[in-house]
Amino acid sequence: MSDSKAVVVLSGGLDSTTLLHHVIAQGWDAYPISFDYGQRHKKELQFAAYQAGFSGNDLQIVDLDFTELFAESGSSLVTDTDVPEGHYGEESMKQTVVPNRNMIMLSIAAGYAVSIGAEKVCTGVHAGDHFIYPDCRPAFIGATDVAINLGNEGFIRPGFFIDTPFIDKDKNWIAQRAFDLNVDIARTWSCYKGGDIHCGKCGTCVERLEAIASTGNADPTPYEDDQFWREALKRETV
Amino acid sequence: MSDSKAVVVLSGGLDSTTLLHHVIAQGWDAYPISFDYGQRHKKELQFAAYQAGFSGNDLQIVDLDFTELFAESGSSLVTDTDVPEGHYGEESMKQTVVPNRNMIMLSIAAGYAVSIGAEKVCTGVHAGDHFIYPDCRPAFIGATDVAINLGNEGFIRPGFFIDTPFIDKDKNWIAQRAFDLNVDIARTWSCYKGGDIHCGKCGTCVERLEAIASTGNADPTPYEDDQFWREALKRETV
Repeated sequence: MSDSKAVVVLSGGLDSTTLLHHVIAQGWDAYPISFDYGQRHKKELQFAAYQAGFSGNDLQIVDLDFTELFAESGSSLVTDTDVPEGHYGEESMKQTVVPNRNMIMLSIAAGYAVSIGAEKVCTGVHAGDHFIYPDCRPAFIGATDVAINLGNEGFIRPGFFIDTPFIDKDKNWIAQRAFDLNVDIARTWSCYKGGDIHCGKCGTCVERLEAIASTGNADPTPYEDDQFWREALKRETV
Repeated sequence: MSDSKAVVVLSGGLDSTTLLHHVIAQGWDAYPISFDYGQRHKKELQFAAYQAGFSGNDLQIVDLDFTELFAESGSSLVTDTDVPEGHYGEESMKQTVVPNRNMIMLSIAAGYAVSIGAEKVCTGVHAGDHFIYPDCRPAFIGATDVAINLGNEGFIRPGFFIDTPFIDKDKNWIAQRAFDLNVDIARTWSCYKGGDIHCGKCGTCVERLEAIASTGNADPTPYEDDQFWREALKRETV
């Protein structure tokens, strides 16, 4: 089924990069799409461009400047609010929610899918996202799938669907899958801050370090602080 | 309920401009939002900015350049395909569909609503749109409403909904409502072409002329051809 097209939402992070390689390994003709929504961490788009090269198709980068539109949201990803440190389980991580982000990205990716005749849009949401991000939950994905099919009736490929192969997997599983697929994980970006290397202390860095450690493989990523995550984890699990 | 916020999707056309005045007349604090998605007819954004002034709030203009992303869609609104002339009932009007346009606009408008704590997003879809545009149909709006509420649980105002006061009205009804609300309809833009004045021959011009004529009021809009619509209408209704 190598002539079957799949649009892949690619942030350049560990999850979506593993997803891209997973979809390619399954024989799909992958069309990666990334979003520049004013996030602080531009590094992830550089890595997205690198990883997209494996698809053989151009990376589409959609420019969505939400810094003004979402100025009142208090989201630390698109405003001046400090990026919280610690484990994702903590209340402070709600500051990393960008209003309706996944629906916006899936809507545009679906428009692209209609335009090129793709059979599905793939997104790397996983079970560990559900607690904090409502737009990573199965019910949301299902409703969005229905809306896309209804809103593009007669124009979209019959049978089109949103594919979420990691939705019942946790981050540790994804990290193991990344090693299995020989993904160059040093060329993925998770950190919410804008530094030259991963901080090691924000929620997504802590989650990344924990997941990669769980595989038993050495982590090739340089971090400013590669020990903080162990303490953050202990605080969460007391 | 003048402190209740409503986001209004405003294109600068007759329908959405009437919607804005309709929502303001009902006492809502209206927050207009427009989209520049690479459409040829930039005039409508100029009129949107003028009409937005009546809300007392800044017009948010979201820049979405889809000319490259949707290059293969064949949509005459974002590609070099000729804009079809005639009545909306004709098959050629499918060329004016932009992939997933309404879902993309509603998703972003919903993110804005979450950011400012608005109670609803209003869109001017009407019964006459249903035939040609699947993303103007009630089932699509309903599914999108569900997806937005699920995807923003805990962040969106309880009871949030997509408001479509014109969804069971036709264009003639909207034109009458525009006159009733003293909308300056000469400062609304419907034409899909990029001229200095309305062409009078594309699908949306024909529909506009027909609707305004149905009210029995004089049409203050200048058109390049203000008679073509009568012939187009006859062809359709034979």
